[in-house]
Amino acid sequence: MSFNTFGHLFRVTTFGESHGPAIGCVVDGCPPRIPLSERDIQPYLDRRRPGQSRFTTQRQEPDAVKILSGVFLDEAAGMQVTTGTPIALIIDNVDQRAKDYSDIKDKYRPGHADYTYDVKYGLRDYRGGGRQSARETAMRVAAGAIARKVVPGLAVRGALVQMGPHRIDRTRWDWAEVDRNAFFCPDADKAKFFAEYLDGVRKRGSSIGAVIEVVADGVPAGLGSPIYGKLDGDLAAALMGINAVKGVEIGAGFGAAELSGEQNGDEIRMGNDGKPVFLSNNAGGILGGISTGQPVVARFAVKPTSSILIPRRTVDRYGHETEISTTGRHDPCVGIRAVPIGEAMVACVIADHYLRQRGQVGETPSWPFSPPRAP
Amino acid sequence: MSFNTFGHLFRVTTFGESHGPAIGCVVDGCPPRIPLSERDIQPYLDRRRPGQSRFTTQRQEPDAVKILSGVFLDEAAGMQVTTGTPIALIIDNVDQRAKDYSDIKDKYRPGHADYTYDVKYGLRDYRGGGRQSARETAMRVAAGAIARKVVPGLAVRGALVQMGPHRIDRTRWDWAEVDRNAFFCPDADKAKFFAEYLDGVRKRGSSIGAVIEVVADGVPAGLGSPIYGKLDGDLAAALMGINAVKGVEIGAGFGAAELSGEQNGDEIRMGNDGKPVFLSNNAGGILGGISTGQPVVARFAVKPTSSILIPRRTVDRYGHETEISTTGRHDPCVGIRAVPIGEAMVACVIADHYLRQRGQVGETPSWPFSPPRAP
Amino acid sequence: MSFNTFGHLFRVTTFGESHGPAIGCVVDGCPPRIPLSERDIQPYLDRRRPGQSRFTTQRQEPDAVKILSGVFLDEAAGMQVTTGTPIALIIDNVDQRAKDYSDIKDKYRPGHADYTYDVKYGLRDYRGGGRQSARETAMRVAAGAIARKVVPGLAVRGALVQMGPHRIDRTRWDWAEVDRNAFFCPDADKAKFFAEYLDGVRKRGSSIGAVIEVVADGVPAGLGSPIYGKLDGDLAAALMGINAVKGVEIGAGFGAAELSGEQNGDEIRMGNDGKPVFLSNNAGGILGGISTGQPVVARFAVKPTSSILIPRRTVDRYGHETEISTTGRHDPCVGIRAVPIGEAMVACVIADHYLRQRGQVGETPSWPFSPPRAP
Amino acid sequence: MSFNTFGHLFRVTTFGESHGPAIGCVVDGCPPRIPLSERDIQPYLDRRRPGQSRFTTQRQEPDAVKILSGVFLDEAAGMQVTTGTPIALIIDNVDQRAKDYSDIKDKYRPGHADYTYDVKYGLRDYRGGGRQSARETAMRVAAGAIARKVVPGLAVRGALVQMGPHRIDRTRWDWAEVDRNAFFCPDADKAKFFAEYLDGVRKRGSSIGAVIEVVADGVPAGLGSPIYGKLDGDLAAALMGINAVKGVEIGAGFGAAELSGEQNGDEIRMGNDGKPVFLSNNAGGILGGISTGQPVVARFAVKPTSSILIPRRTVDRYGHETEISTTGRHDPCVGIRAVPIGEAMVACVIADHYLRQRGQVGETPSWPFSPPRAP
Repeated sequence: MSFNTFGHLFRVTTFGESHGPAIGCVVDGCPPRIPLSERDIQPYLDRRRPGQSRFTTQRQEPDAVKILSGVFLDEAAGMQVTTGTPIALIIDNVDQRAKDYSDIKDKYRPGHADYTYDVKYGLRDYRGGGRQSARETAMRVAAGAIARKVVPGLAVRGALVQMGPHRIDRTRWDWAEVDRNAFFCPDADKAKFFAEYLDGVRKRGSSIGAVIEVVADGVPAGLGSPIYGKLDGDLAAALMGINAVKGVEIGAGFGAAELSGEQNGDEIRMGNDGKPVFLSNNAGGILGGISTGQPVVARFAVKPTSSILIPRRTVDRYGHETEISTTGRHDPCVGIRAVPIGEAMVACVIADHYLRQRGQVGETPSWPFSPPRAP
Repeated sequence: MSFNTFGHLFRVTTFGESHGPAIGCVVDGCPPRIPLSERDIQPYLDRRRPGQSRFTTQRQEPDAVKILSGVFLDEAAGMQVTTGTPIALIIDNVDQRAKDYSDIKDKYRPGHADYTYDVKYGLRDYRGGGRQSARETAMRVAAGAIARKVVPGLAVRGALVQMGPHRIDRTRWDWAEVDRNAFFCPDADKAKFFAEYLDGVRKRGSSIGAVIEVVADGVPAGLGSPIYGKLDGDLAAALMGINAVKGVEIGAGFGAAELSGEQNGDEIRMGNDGKPVFLSNNAGGILGGISTGQPVVARFAVKPTSSILIPRRTVDRYGHETEISTTGRHDPCVGIRAVPIGEAMVACVIADHYLRQRGQVGETPSWPFSPPRAP
Repeated sequence: MSFNTFGHLFRVTTFGESHGPAIGCVVDGCPPRIPLSERDIQPYLDRRRPGQSRFTTQRQEPDAVKILSGVFLDEAAGMQVTTGTPIALIIDNVDQRAKDYSDIKDKYRPGHADYTYDVKYGLRDYRGGGRQSARETAMRVAAGAIARKVVPGLAVRGALVQMGPHRIDRTRWDWAEVDRNAFFCPDADKAKFFAEYLDGVRKRGSSIGAVIEVVADGVPAGLGSPIYGKLDGDLAAALMGINAVKGVEIGAGFGAAELSGEQNGDEIRMGNDGKPVFLSNNAGGILGGISTGQPVVARFAVKPTSSILIPRRTVDRYGHETEISTTGRHDPCVGIRAVPIGEAMVACVIADHYLRQRGQVGETPSWPFSPPRAP
Repeated sequence: MSFNTFGHLFRVTTFGESHGPAIGCVVDGCPPRIPLSERDIQPYLDRRRPGQSRFTTQRQEPDAVKILSGVFLDEAAGMQVTTGTPIALIIDNVDQRAKDYSDIKDKYRPGHADYTYDVKYGLRDYRGGGRQSARETAMRVAAGAIARKVVPGLAVRGALVQMGPHRIDRTRWDWAEVDRNAFFCPDADKAKFFAEYLDGVRKRGSSIGAVIEVVADGVPAGLGSPIYGKLDGDLAAALMGINAVKGVEIGAGFGAAELSGEQNGDEIRMGNDGKPVFLSNNAGGILGGISTGQPVVARFAVKPTSSILIPRRTVDRYGHETEISTTGRHDPCVGIRAVPIGEAMVACVIADHYLRQRGQVGETPSWPFSPPRAP
């Protein structure tokens, strides 16, 4: 994780601003001979794309991804595959409305990175948020689509589990429901409630936060790189690095602070497949920074959209006090669209650690081990 | 963050197991000509050291740090200073009791990384937790002591704000109180309560989780490196990478999910010093991954100690189901000693970003900017 | 230096194959507020571009670079400048002749990376050399154009100093001559000779090697990062990483092996500007991996073009022995076009170390130092 | 390669100065379950150790290496093996004679890094060269001893092939001879000549340069990471980063500049083992930055020792012109001891790329490939 690149062996570098000619990314280190075409990536981008319901910004971008490099026809396989060289992806920015930025270009919107970019670099691209635009996250989703293909058997799914103070009923969790409502919500009843609730938020020119949960099934045991490249450490960085995220937790998370040792430590029995089964998953699939083979479970908190109609007090870049009210296209709950982004980040981190483990250890030692022979 | 090294310009590499001859670290990239001797580091280690109250493990280690390299006498200044070359620190392991590990060496303790290390590497050093021992964190504290000296004006302080379900009363927060009780607790009344509460936990052979808050004052605005080297992203990785941590949040954190946009976005006014003042700090001093100049506020959740007297079900490395009850020296609440560790990690991340910002941008542009002249 | 990214703070990632839709790069970590437009980059690309004389391949590519991100109008300055965010550059591939690759796609051309790519990845893009094409180097030149603007006062110039066994006469060195002939040769007489000589090489379907020298003036003293990020170490990697390069030397280089200590060590006197002047430059401007303030001088050897008309024995990917004769557009001496590429790599390395030094040390200590006061 | 760490998956960090308490290194990323004890490392250190003949410095250091971490008894195997966690190695500095440094501490020795360290950092440890001491290279040799065990079948050997203007006769090359003389020279006759020659050099208070050749057999085909992590690029950085090295070449090296395409490109036939055999090895085992499976051949030029008795002109740190004559223990030809160091660096680079290839590609695709079936 550094600058605009993340990952150590599966490496993603993104570029682009909201209102430049294009956004893009370079995925470097991807294994060769993985079938890949735009059709493998586009569906994930479509899930993230705004403008699909009244609950997300009405900016209309087709977000059509193009692969510029790193793939080739494998004649023997009869299909296009990765070559092991950098895969460059690009999405043209097409919905750049000619807009008057005079109100926004000198003012710092509360909750936005306007001030921090300005004070860091001495200038900023104020059009549509520039580099801090949520648009950049499209490339994370695209990279994540590739990452999903790197780890055999990996399935990464996300869901919105809280909006404002309203939590879903976890006993009603139905993954199939996630794609049936506008909120990626696994609880059908709560989804109906959210529709009404969010309409209210939107109508009063406000916004609201949310909590997203991402679950990765099929993560092999043994991924993670102690002490400073722990799987949970890298997940935390990846998820905290998503726009508007203010908290990350693994497994029992902050709830673990309230548990006793005997409540928290997941007991172990032998499963039918000859591998350990944990009787609970407070660990969220990670112990000592290394995957246990159980599902990896991460949650992250997304703050409410900072661009709201309600006027806020602020200052401008010349040090004058002023007010700002943000009109235009904005999601009343950016947490919704964070679902596919969170999935993508988790997939990228797991793919990276999968390759790292293969690099350091190679073939996994057979488990269970044979007892030492008697002398 | 990769493997056993963290940081990009201020780089810390640690090594050592609980029961090897020594633990140590190499701090690379430290600026030259910073006064440094063991006396600058030892006090922080003493704060972390176990055996100082009945609430931490009774393992007795002097944890006396030695500097092996990277310092030299600056004749002009008349003191020992850093040279800009790698600073190696070492602590000998002295309290390695001859212990019978026969019960533990083949069994996987629930909540510990025994199974994951074994399945990852095919073997593990089971003495005292090996590499997963909390002992490694002494070197983080040592590195943090150096990091604190890198950023002029930086002050990083931590406090225990929750134990089990019991939160401190934030209106009673007194930093001076933190060093007066065995819990690094800023609320004197709650500290008294914790003593009694934790005695109960300990006596019944159990353990309990905690939440730690770290506050960094004096962080210059403009630190952080979008998009994947965000200050909060790196803090999240650094804190999640501490043993037993299951959650990290910045500013309002998970609470932000419950807020509306107008509640969350920190409004801005001009301060008396000609710099922006935020009227609240839900951002925790970070917007868009870049520091705002406000205090950086991070919290992390520590799970309860996994080594408890109460018997737990588990399996051994040969696939047999069994039970384990951990006797010996263990903290009933590892969260307590996580306070100085959390401080150290925050200091290291900020020092790294301080150097990175100086590298990329050099002298910070003057703020506020001059308005463009009329044509 | 790893995978398709090089640099630590000034970071360049390239992508693209010879016959894909485009090649490009992402320059990350560039300081903000540096004036930059396509006009700053294009002239360097034009120097590298093939098809400009009968001595380089006749492939006709306009190599028109587009900036996709990372720049913005600085109103105060009235010009487009860098923003500090990733600068993506792209060049469309336009001269992709429909060509019959049936002869080449299964055969391994001697001297090329056909076999090694195939055995590494299990497949390769054989069109025009795929990723191993010299076309990739256009992006290095583009990145180098930005790097040149990062270090104030830096001037990096290159020249061809040997072709086949024929060395230039160094007493006739005239930098102005370099841009007046097709060989970037600083010796006008030798340039005339090379024209005739290379015509002979080309006509007999052969090719020839060359040696390039790059000189960087204006490199501040103190750049370089011992022990494994030495300035000369990074230059060596950067230059050896150019296609077809088989040797790199700094200053006296391999000649230093023949020198005695008193011949080699550059003596020092005080210059008129109050700084040390070295009476010779066998060090090539680098001592202990750190720049001395003298010109940095590097040379590298480029092997002859491997694609030649003369038939060669080889095998194909199915293990059959066969022959190959490469027809088509090829430079008889790829060393010529390596001149602007070598300059670019040197510029990128110096820019990276310039930022690294600023990061670690900040303001350079004043030199000469004041003597310690008497007690 | 950055700062004091090199390698991407097999990572070596060194620390220590000539006259501090100890030097050491941390080897991170080493695969687990590799048998390792001090006995595997010490012989390589003994080869590099000074004071073994009258041709190397008479400093007497036992250079006894201790392993501080990263190994454990594998009960099943009945031996000590690596655990996959960081391996820390340390060598105490014992021969730190109380010496008067008053002549050297303010003066910059020509050919040394005295001035550059001083101007970079604002101070330097002048005792015995401080961090720039050749003593640091002991840790490279130690790390190399581990690297050799990472790649099955790897054999890395080095030899001195030139001293001053005198080259060995390559037709007399006998690897067995290398360990029979004080020069690591594979030509017995030339070794005798070197003894006399170097006595003369030493007696007149001078020194002389040398060229070293390192050959790695058993390097699997397919190692190397285009475009900026090429195997030859990383070798160049690793070898150029050795103290006093001024040039690096692979295979035909600078000689390739004089070759025609048909002389240079190594033709290929099928070998008896069903793999390609190259009819020559001008490539030095590397094409396009990727290993061919042939021996990897690298050479590097070492400048003459800069510390000589003959007086040289220089300046001091206060800007005064002066002279210096270096007395004391110094090698008349540092190139000799560079042989085991060069071997070690090559071994480390190959081990790193071996793990990187395993990480990205996993099991190597079977070669030769099957022809596509007829439709």
